[in-house]
Amino acid sequence: MRARVVGVMGPGVGATPQDLERARDLGRAIAQAGWILLTGGMNQGVMAAAVQGAKEAGGWTVGVVPTEGDVGVCPDLDLVIRTGMGHARNLINVLSSDVVVACGMGAGTASEVALALKTGRPVILLTDQDEAQAFFQKLGGKQVMLVSGVGEAVTILRCWLSPAGGRTP
Amino acid sequence: MRARVVGVMGPGVGATPQDLERARDLGRAIAQAGWILLTGGMNQGVMAAAVQGAKEAGGWTVGVVPTEGDVGVCPDLDLVIRTGMGHARNLINVLSSDVVVACGMGAGTASEVALALKTGRPVILLTDQDEAQAFFQKLGGKQVMLVSGVGEAVTILRCWLSPAGGRTP
Amino acid sequence: MRARVVGVMGPGVGATPQDLERARDLGRAIAQAGWILLTGGMNQGVMAAAVQGAKEAGGWTVGVVPTEGDVGVCPDLDLVIRTGMGHARNLINVLSSDVVVACGMGAGTASEVALALKTGRPVILLTDQDEAQAFFQKLGGKQVMLVSGVGEAVTILRCWLSPAGGRTP
Amino acid sequence: MRARVVGVMGPGVGATPQDLERARDLGRAIAQAGWILLTGGMNQGVMAAAVQGAKEAGGWTVGVVPTEGDVGVCPDLDLVIRTGMGHARNLINVLSSDVVVACGMGAGTASEVALALKTGRPVILLTDQDEAQAFFQKLGGKQVMLVSGVGEAVTILRCWLSPAGGRTP
Repeated sequence: MRARVVGVMGPGVGATPQDLERARDLGRAIAQAGWILLTGGMNQGVMAAAVQGAKEAGGWTVGVVPTEGDVGVCPDLDLVIRTGMGHARNLINVLSSDVVVACGMGAGTASEVALALKTGRPVILLTDQDEAQAFFQKLGGKQVMLVSGVGEAVTILRCWLSPAGGRTP
Repeated sequence: MRARVVGVMGPGVGATPQDLERARDLGRAIAQAGWILLTGGMNQGVMAAAVQGAKEAGGWTVGVVPTEGDVGVCPDLDLVIRTGMGHARNLINVLSSDVVVACGMGAGTASEVALALKTGRPVILLTDQDEAQAFFQKLGGKQVMLVSGVGEAVTILRCWLSPAGGRTP
Repeated sequence: MRARVVGVMGPGVGATPQDLERARDLGRAIAQAGWILLTGGMNQGVMAAAVQGAKEAGGWTVGVVPTEGDVGVCPDLDLVIRTGMGHARNLINVLSSDVVVACGMGAGTASEVALALKTGRPVILLTDQDEAQAFFQKLGGKQVMLVSGVGEAVTILRCWLSPAGGRTP
Repeated sequence: MRARVVGVMGPGVGATPQDLERARDLGRAIAQAGWILLTGGMNQGVMAAAVQGAKEAGGWTVGVVPTEGDVGVCPDLDLVIRTGMGHARNLINVLSSDVVVACGMGAGTASEVALALKTGRPVILLTDQDEAQAFFQKLGGKQVMLVSGVGEAVTILRCWLSPAGGRTP
């Protein structure tokens, strides 16, 4: 049966300590729920922290990386989808996620949230940046859920992803 | 000599009458300056209006389209770059433009502005939406210029693109 | 630990009965060995037959699909990587596979073998077409192994992929 | 009016002296006919030679490059479409060409011919390699024309591309 996939998107460079802590907590909660964690796969920032959390909880992780090879790729991933397509892989990240959680904000993350809205994927926005909240709520309407913490994000994920969904690896 | 390329990005569906009028004026001004107009190439909204303006002024236009073939493609383009890659072509649009002008706002346009900021392309933002102005100025700092009309946009373009630049077709 | 991934590439439309039988046998053997099966993910031809074989043997499967959504996608996949990039996903297929097995031949398959050779991925070629054998051996030298049956292909896979490699889901 | 675009594809590294001479002659003939020359845009091998020929004849050239920036890009191009997508740009090359001419053979070139056949673009094959001729004729049937020299290639191009086609820059 199809596995459930939660994408966690966030800054590689420029993540705040809070972004990293939240990403790790998100990864842990996603693993505990039996969902697959999908990230951009590089060994930095929110991507690395989310994978670390998921692995601590015994979860299974996939990274969709911009590179052809494994330089800079998070070594703890269970599956690496190598695109060789640079930032164009951002589109694949959101299309392949049942829900996209944006944890923190940066230019790459913004492109992923925008592409998720463009292609009809639901987005949970976990950032303290007022401007990002205002903009993406204006842009996405009900497709975007603003949350103030990991607990709230996980509650929404549980609501959106049926518990019986998918054989997780 | 390399031609100068100005990318005009904006909503296909959901463009306002003002967006369309501005896009047409931008296209005309770009053509008059001897620059190539680059758009997403579909026959709708800001893309179509910008091409119309450029062709009225005898300019030369290239469209980077999401499709494999020509269905829905603007018939007035001089050159069609067919990507067959859907929204992933948004990255190509911004990478191939010397300057990106966002005319209006939507999810696709937001992804293009974000990708332009991610990859170091200068952006001129021509939208009346306060939330977009605040967000992208926060995200891009000096890489983003907010303008209130086409005239101001063209002044900045003239400043950034040297008049001697490139043999235009 | 990183899972081992074997990509099985072959015609969607135009697969011969022998191609389909071989694909199913390959899928079964890949699952029994504890490797992940990666295909182009559509519900036709070699892609569908390989997934069917893998699922019969209790394996785990990932499909890298050309589409944005799930129309035409093989329903038995455990993980669907949606690219929305059409044939450009062929590159991702080969980059994400530790070994590429070409089962049968067609234009799409030929592009995948060529891209695998271009990017340094080892290829096992399982086709009775003399012209394909001659061409790809000329093009790829020792990077291409010609085999005459599934058993021989699996022997080479076992040789190339260490048995201890990767936690399989 | 839409310009006519002829794509010349061939090895960057590994081109033979004859490949380079033919590419230059092709570029010159394409320019003289008033068509746009499209190549993969890097400053090496067949790509560079074709552009050189076209520029000698006063033609107009577009390069669809794998990079985000201009490192390694042919400096004589009139328009650079930067994809930032590595070898995935091979698909764009063939989709954007009215006719694809393969000049010489290598793994990248083979992927382009295969993708052209997959997506219905006509191919002119100019290579002395028997295995490539046999394979692609088998794969493409009437979609592939084998030629033994530049003159013959240009004759076919003239036949396929109507003389009135497109305003060339």
